[in-house]
Amino acid sequence: MKNLIERKLEELLSGVRPAVLFDAMRHAVMSGGKRVRPQICLAAAVAVGGKAEDAVCPACAIELLHSYTLVHDDLPSMDNDTERRGQPTVWTKFGEANAVLAGDALQSLAFRAAAQSPKNADRIVAELAEAGVGVVRGQVEDLDGDDVDFIYRHKTADLFIAAAVMGAYAGGGSEADVGRLREYALNLGLAFQFEDDLLDDDSPYSKAETERMVAEHTEAAVSALEGLSGDTSFLASLAERLMGRSE
Amino acid sequence: MKNLIERKLEELLSGVRPAVLFDAMRHAVMSGGKRVRPQICLAAAVAVGGKAEDAVCPACAIELLHSYTLVHDDLPSMDNDTERRGQPTVWTKFGEANAVLAGDALQSLAFRAAAQSPKNADRIVAELAEAGVGVVRGQVEDLDGDDVDFIYRHKTADLFIAAAVMGAYAGGGSEADVGRLREYALNLGLAFQFEDDLLDDDSPYSKAETERMVAEHTEAAVSALEGLSGDTSFLASLAERLMGRSE
Repeated sequence: MKNLIERKLEELLSGVRPAVLFDAMRHAVMSGGKRVRPQICLAAAVAVGGKAEDAVCPACAIELLHSYTLVHDDLPSMDNDTERRGQPTVWTKFGEANAVLAGDALQSLAFRAAAQSPKNADRIVAELAEAGVGVVRGQVEDLDGDDVDFIYRHKTADLFIAAAVMGAYAGGGSEADVGRLREYALNLGLAFQFEDDLLDDDSPYSKAETERMVAEHTEAAVSALEGLSGDTSFLASLAERLMGRSE
Repeated sequence: MKNLIERKLEELLSGVRPAVLFDAMRHAVMSGGKRVRPQICLAAAVAVGGKAEDAVCPACAIELLHSYTLVHDDLPSMDNDTERRGQPTVWTKFGEANAVLAGDALQSLAFRAAAQSPKNADRIVAELAEAGVGVVRGQVEDLDGDDVDFIYRHKTADLFIAAAVMGAYAGGGSEADVGRLREYALNLGLAFQFEDDLLDDDSPYSKAETERMVAEHTEAAVSALEGLSGDTSFLASLAERLMGRSE
């Protein structure tokens, strides 16, 4: 599935000029991301009985949106990070102004990709826009506020939800299927975030509490897959991997 | 026409939380813009025989996209401007991180508005995405390059083109009508940019050359309106105002 995504991402980026903008955008997108969100998107299309190929456009859209948030999160005025995945961050390599602009263009490119979805493009774009606003809401609360549930819900889960819901629409799923995948992705996102907390000494929750949250949300994610007509094995194993049950 | 736009912009912004994000976004959008682009969008719907009301969503979308570009252009790493329209810029009032984030959320909100268009939402979103990438291309070239034609084409004209084309789609125009309005808006945008140059001592063109360019592009804009079935008086007078023929 990853090959489908990598090829389409290259295609979407191609033709961007001037060269410095292309280089900065490509550096942000093609530098070894695990592609978790786009894989959720493709797998959601499969889970509703569609084909992974149907969801390549929204899958790339969610990855481009995610990429832009990382570029902007790394800025000096935000997290001030100079390295990501062992590489210099976009602002470190291309300057701060180009990093702001490359992130901005990646967001537009995400919507261009979403609009190219062969099926239900209007719903897919609406879902991506919802996630786009949501992820910023979570980030602002993270900078200025202290509502941890709000931060987890929006900063992390919103992109998982959009990935799954867009995939379900792209695969031609019913509203009931979309609802199941929304529930799955919300819980997957929260499990993912609590799992992250286990590695974080500043977590507001105790280790025991955090482990219980990971287990509860993982179980809820897997349960939500019941009733889907297609193959849900990828989505189920992704949730279970978070529990350390495999790999 | 402006009332339609102001009301819908308020509606689109309402419900954004946390409060600091809402305040920063509202400060960017509701602070006395002339609403040229959204008015072009509404007028384009009328020019193809539709109603202005049909184009309120894309009209707000183009204004939200334009607003985000201003918020980011003003950042310290870009133009480092502390005032806009007699008010402190978003970063001056809300801090640099919040300004980056408010701009990011405005871009998502622009696409949410575009996706809500009752007619041809998919084409409207695609056109907005094209302009979203284009305007950044122009801005990067403006920062790092010297291709003035490229800068004028993308930094200014792309948003005018998207406004007119989205309005034509929203009003149910034919592909031929869309083509006419694309031609109109390209020339209007270039005339607008050259007109701006008359006030700019750093312009790469002589005053006589610039005046000739304004006249030529204005004429081409007005000519492009021929053949449209609806009322084109607003669009024609907008172009002619640029020539100082009225107001």
